Amino acid sequence: MRKDISQVVIKRMPRYYRYLRYLMDEGKERVSSAELSELMSVTASQIRQDLNNFGGFGQQGYGYNVKKLHEEIGKILGLDKTHNLIIIGGGNLGKALASTDAFSKHNFYITAVFDNNEKLKGTMINDIPIRTMDELDDYYAKNRVDMAVLTIPAEHAQEVADRLVKLGIKAIWNFAQVDLEVPDDVVVQNVHLADSVMRLSLNMIQREKQVNIENGK
Amino acid sequence: MRKDISQVVIKRMPRYYRYLRYLMDEGKERVSSAELSELMSVTASQIRQDLNNFGGFGQQGYGYNVKKLHEEIGKILGLDKTHNLIIIGGGNLGKALASTDAFSKHNFYITAVFDNNEKLKGTMINDIPIRTMDELDDYYAKNRVDMAVLTIPAEHAQEVADRLVKLGIKAIWNFAQVDLEVPDDVVVQNVHLADSVMRLSLNMIQREKQVNIENGK
Repeated sequence: MRKDISQVVIKRMPRYYRYLRYLMDEGKERVSSAELSELMSVTASQIRQDLNNFGGFGQQGYGYNVKKLHEEIGKILGLDKTHNLIIIGGGNLGKALASTDAFSKHNFYITAVFDNNEKLKGTMINDIPIRTMDELDDYYAKNRVDMAVLTIPAEHAQEVADRLVKLGIKAIWNFAQVDLEVPDDVVVQNVHLADSVMRLSLNMIQREKQVNIENGK
Repeated sequence: MRKDISQVVIKRMPRYYRYLRYLMDEGKERVSSAELSELMSVTASQIRQDLNNFGGFGQQGYGYNVKKLHEEIGKILGLDKTHNLIIIGGGNLGKALASTDAFSKHNFYITAVFDNNEKLKGTMINDIPIRTMDELDDYYAKNRVDMAVLTIPAEHAQEVADRLVKLGIKAIWNFAQVDLEVPDDVVVQNVHLADSVMRLSLNMIQREKQVNIENGK
C-alpha cells in the first residue's frame, strides 16, 4: 500500500521545526495549536492534520510541549542522523554552499566537492579540497555519501545525475536550472533560482495590478 | 475586485518559459498542448487553465506557436523589462548571486551590493563594489531599485526588510532563513535553503519507506 504524503505537507514540516526552535529560543515551554496557528498563519486543524501524517502528537488541552515537538519533528525530518553531502560543481554557488554552517548545524555535512575543471584540483573550500570528476567513482566507493548537490550548468546536469544514480545515490539537491529524470527510488529537491526570481517578478506585477484596482486606477 | 492567481500557477509559469525555450533551442516551431503536457508532466487542460489566468493564448487545432508563446509568457513574467536588484549581504551567497550571469540573461541585473562589514567596502564582485549599509538610503534615492535580495543572517533580516520597505521597495527575494512580515503591497519570494535540504531528507526517508513496503520488507 503506497501512501504518499503531499508535498504541501512536506514543505510545512521544516517550517514547523523552524518556528518551534524560535519558541524554544524565546524560552517558551508549551504552545497551544491556536498560538502556533497564529504565529505560522496556518489553521490549527491544518497543524493537527499535518502532524497526523506522521503519527500525531499527544496534544492535550494545554497544548504541545515545545521542546518535545521540536525534537519529534527533527526526527521526522531525519535531523537526528548525520547526512554526508557531496557537491558537484565548485563554482561560486558550490563554494557558497560549502562555506556556510547553515547546513552542518542541522547535521548536513558537505564532505567533498568535485569539479570537471582540472585546474581547480586541490583548491581548498572551508577545509575541503576540490576533487576532479575522475575521482568521483573511487570516492563514492570508499566513503558514505547520502546526498549529491548539483551546482553545475543545466546542460551537464542530467548526465551527471545519471552517473550518480548509477553509483547508487538516492537523493539529489538540484540547483541546475533543469528538471532531472531519475528512477522512482531517487528523490530530487530542486532549487531553481532563475525560476524563483521570475516568480518574484510575476508576483510583483500581479500585486501592483491589485493595488491599482483597489485604488480605483 | 481582487482576484489572486494561485501560487501553484505562478510557480508553473517560469517552468513553461523554460520548456518553451528548450523547444525553441531544439528548432521546434509548433507544439501541441498534448506534447507540452507530456514533456512537462502537467495535463493539457491544466496548461490551458494556467494560461487562461493571463488572458489565454490562441491555441488552434495545430497547437501553440513556440516562439510566440515563449515571448508572451516572458512578458507575463515581466522579462521584457529590466529589473535592478540590490543585494544586502556580501557574504559567500551574496557573492555567488552577484557573480553569475544566470539572472542577467533574463533581464535581472545586480546593480549594487551592501554589507554592514566596513572592511568589505570597495571590494569588487563582478565589477560591482561592495558598499556599506550607511550608503543604502543615498543609493536608493539616486538609483532605480526594483528588487532587494537578502543574503544576511536570519536575525537581521526583519530589521533590514523594514528599512527597505520604508525606502519604498516592493519586492524582496529573501534567502534569510526566516519568514518576513511586510505590508500588503510588498511581495516576498523566499529561498529557504535549510528548509529545502530538510525537505530532501524527509522525502528521502518517505521514499525509502515506500520502497521497503513495495518490496514487502
